[in-house]
Amino acid sequence: MITVLFSGDAAKRPLYDPALREAAEKAGLAMQLHLDPEAVQPEEVDYLVYDGNGPVQDFAPYTGLRAVLNLWAGVEAVMRCNPRPDLPVARMIEPGLTEGMRDYVIGHVLRHHLDIDQYIGADPITEWELTFPPLSRNRTVGILGLGALGADCGAHLAHLGFQVLGWARSQKEIPEVTCFSGANGLSELISRAEILVLLLPHTEETARLLNAERIAALPEGACIVNAGRGALIDHEALLEALNRGHIRHATMDVFDVEPLPADHPYWAHPRVTVTPHIASVTRPETASEAIVANILRDQSGEPMLGIVRRTLGY
Amino acid sequence: MITVLFSGDAAKRPLYDPALREAAEKAGLAMQLHLDPEAVQPEEVDYLVYDGNGPVQDFAPYTGLRAVLNLWAGVEAVMRCNPRPDLPVARMIEPGLTEGMRDYVIGHVLRHHLDIDQYIGADPITEWELTFPPLSRNRTVGILGLGALGADCGAHLAHLGFQVLGWARSQKEIPEVTCFSGANGLSELISRAEILVLLLPHTEETARLLNAERIAALPEGACIVNAGRGALIDHEALLEALNRGHIRHATMDVFDVEPLPADHPYWAHPRVTVTPHIASVTRPETASEAIVANILRDQSGEPMLGIVRRTLGY
Repeated sequence: MITVLFSGDAAKRPLYDPALREAAEKAGLAMQLHLDPEAVQPEEVDYLVYDGNGPVQDFAPYTGLRAVLNLWAGVEAVMRCNPRPDLPVARMIEPGLTEGMRDYVIGHVLRHHLDIDQYIGADPITEWELTFPPLSRNRTVGILGLGALGADCGAHLAHLGFQVLGWARSQKEIPEVTCFSGANGLSELISRAEILVLLLPHTEETARLLNAERIAALPEGACIVNAGRGALIDHEALLEALNRGHIRHATMDVFDVEPLPADHPYWAHPRVTVTPHIASVTRPETASEAIVANILRDQSGEPMLGIVRRTLGY
Repeated sequence: MITVLFSGDAAKRPLYDPALREAAEKAGLAMQLHLDPEAVQPEEVDYLVYDGNGPVQDFAPYTGLRAVLNLWAGVEAVMRCNPRPDLPVARMIEPGLTEGMRDYVIGHVLRHHLDIDQYIGADPITEWELTFPPLSRNRTVGILGLGALGADCGAHLAHLGFQVLGWARSQKEIPEVTCFSGANGLSELISRAEILVLLLPHTEETARLLNAERIAALPEGACIVNAGRGALIDHEALLEALNRGHIRHATMDVFDVEPLPADHPYWAHPRVTVTPHIASVTRPETASEAIVANILRDQSGEPMLGIVRRTLGY
């Protein structure tokens, strides 16, 4: 019998309690589940499910841990919890995350591609004239980050007809997507991306990657969709580029501080759309199935999925 | 040497003059092109390219016509021009029409699926709370009309993960799309479509097909995207359903009268989006290539593509 501690915030506990038990029963995993860290001896916990807003933020007392399972795709918070160097930490990989991100990214790319905003809201345009909106085949979308989420978004955008460029630290191969890596590849993508999608993890190398120089190198009138991490962007440089119109619009789901403070200039900026970190939400049912499946992999000696590589930070 | 008359409105002539000549030269078609009906004897015209806003609205003097090539996918106007019963009339089928419609339909379906409107405009929501937006796999989209445009939209929506139901007069087979036909099939689709896309032609059978009864049978909170014809909808019944909230939103590109009159209640309705017949626009380059290719088919004895079946009206 293994012992699992779900260290989620108060809102998540009533959702994950039944979801984890049901997933374990379906998969045939015998498990003692705790949702309150006070109710279990730390050294007895085999697997800890980690939430950035949850009660356990230091793993030192959990001396018997076999692995930590992160509730999210992003792992900056969990890596700050002092894990032993040999302790496996798994990112969340679950179909709900990938599919939700696909809906969000493609929905906002098409919105900017078609400039849908001009037809909605309190003061829509009422001119009725023959225009030839660009086709997706004549629109270049750049994606920074080609992990599970970025690769899926790129493949689906290409299937819709867009010219898709992708960039990642290491060279990737994705059908119908032109893949770049390295500094020159990044410059090439930036210079061509009419709509730029950010899906990179936050690491030392990616922090403020989209700086003033790279923002200026984007095509005139480019749009930005950030569903990765707030830290990827130099926000002062972005505001300046939005104000002078070089960037037509920025749609952002992630910020340096969340919730985005009420006095932040993004809230009222006419060229900015703020969404409250909803692009890709871990869903209790599918996430619980992924957690149980990963524990079973570890129990049977197989490598767990989504293990964070410490030298890379993701 | 064949004689072609392009009967387009004044705005289209300077676009199609070079585009048709270039397409003919590329395809090796020897053609005398006229853009002014006054400059050619009607009986000398072999092929007439028809535009609903163009100068020729009666084909009777054109006694030597081999075929009429319509500039648009919709053919109500051209069928009113008194064509001889044996005169072939071809609908426009060109990749620009299909791709433009795909962008429009999928862009607005995702917009309604994610309820993007709540985050944009002058007064966006600023609450920051954990929500679980529905995934596309849990969203049912219904498409009425499975011609070239509807079939393409259905297949691409299914590829994104949506549950797609389609209906057409005759039974169709589209991979990943649940296809219905007939009166019972229409009722079944209507009762399940959370987002309903209209891509039917305007015929005697489809006029006001979306009447008060069928609108009431849609799921509570359904959205409608009409990119087919204005005549498909009973607009008084739709306004009533929008006002009581049974229909969450209607995005419409086509209307009974176009341009939509400035005093029409749709313009100012908070649950309505009006776009100026831009969903799918015939593009001079790709349309000219399709026209020339169809003329060459006729010249070589092959059947032309998109011939209107008079008994069906499309």
